[in-house]
Amino acid sequence: MSDIPSTKPYLIRAIYEWCVDAGFTPYLAVVAGEGVRVPNAFVRDGQIVLNVAPHATNQFHLDNEAMSCQARFGGVAHMLYVPIANISAIYARENGHGMAFEVTGSGESTGELDVANQQMLVEESTDSGESSQGDDDSSPPGGGRPKLRVIK
Amino acid sequence: MSDIPSTKPYLIRAIYEWCVDAGFTPYLAVVAGEGVRVPNAFVRDGQIVLNVAPHATNQFHLDNEAMSCQARFGGVAHMLYVPIANISAIYARENGHGMAFEVTGSGESTGELDVANQQMLVEESTDSGESSQGDDDSSPPGGGRPKLRVIK
Repeated sequence: MSDIPSTKPYLIRAIYEWCVDAGFTPYLAVVAGEGVRVPNAFVRDGQIVLNVAPHATNQFHLDNEAMSCQARFGGVAHMLYVPIANISAIYARENGHGMAFEVTGSGESTGELDVANQQMLVEESTDSGESSQGDDDSSPPGGGRPKLRVIK
Repeated sequence: MSDIPSTKPYLIRAIYEWCVDAGFTPYLAVVAGEGVRVPNAFVRDGQIVLNVAPHATNQFHLDNEAMSCQARFGGVAHMLYVPIANISAIYARENGHGMAFEVTGSGESTGELDVANQQMLVEESTDSGESSQGDDDSSPPGGGRPKLRVIK
């Protein structure tokens, strides 16, 4: 769409740092597809939500191309790799604050989302728990994934 | 409004870093008021737009409380100090991409803007030049400040 470099990785890092500084748990919503390396057993409806808190990951790295880290699912360590284009949201587990991004098609890596397409999230409610991820955080108090509503 | 720490300084840093990495000139739109230290002669309608590119500033610092730096106006060096609450936008001079923030009242430092209130900018057109700021960049090619339009 545009030859302007995407702000998306910068905004994802910003929300990640805000979460960590504020003591919140950063959750990364990912659209599965080509180039995405996550445990398939935990993908639901083509998506997976990753707990990327410092205490839940090792070797966490988030640059302009991708997020990579090691994390545990059901007690088993996995190396994860998620291109920036496949990240659909980053938000704090505790309150749902963060940012959502438009991801075009499952696995299509456009990598050129415009800031004008980025929209905000608020928490609507909490319900089901997350997908067995986390080594020392498997049963968070009041846990569960917030349902997100896009604010225009 | 909320006791959740503001994401605003994190997002401002994100857009600043994006501008610098992409070779764009970061412009900071500021609402003058209590706690803001800028040269009054360059304030228009209670606002001022600062060129905060690395080549146009010294001792640039942007933390969760304020932006501070040294910059030249009309050949004279000034120390600038702008509380985060008084920053109404950060964007690339060259294309107007960036983010805008709601600032409540001239000089009122709420510091608690919610992400849901933050909105996006696009360039509409360019016209008048900036306010005499910049030591080695006083006549940029195709310069001028973009008119900004808020995208909801």
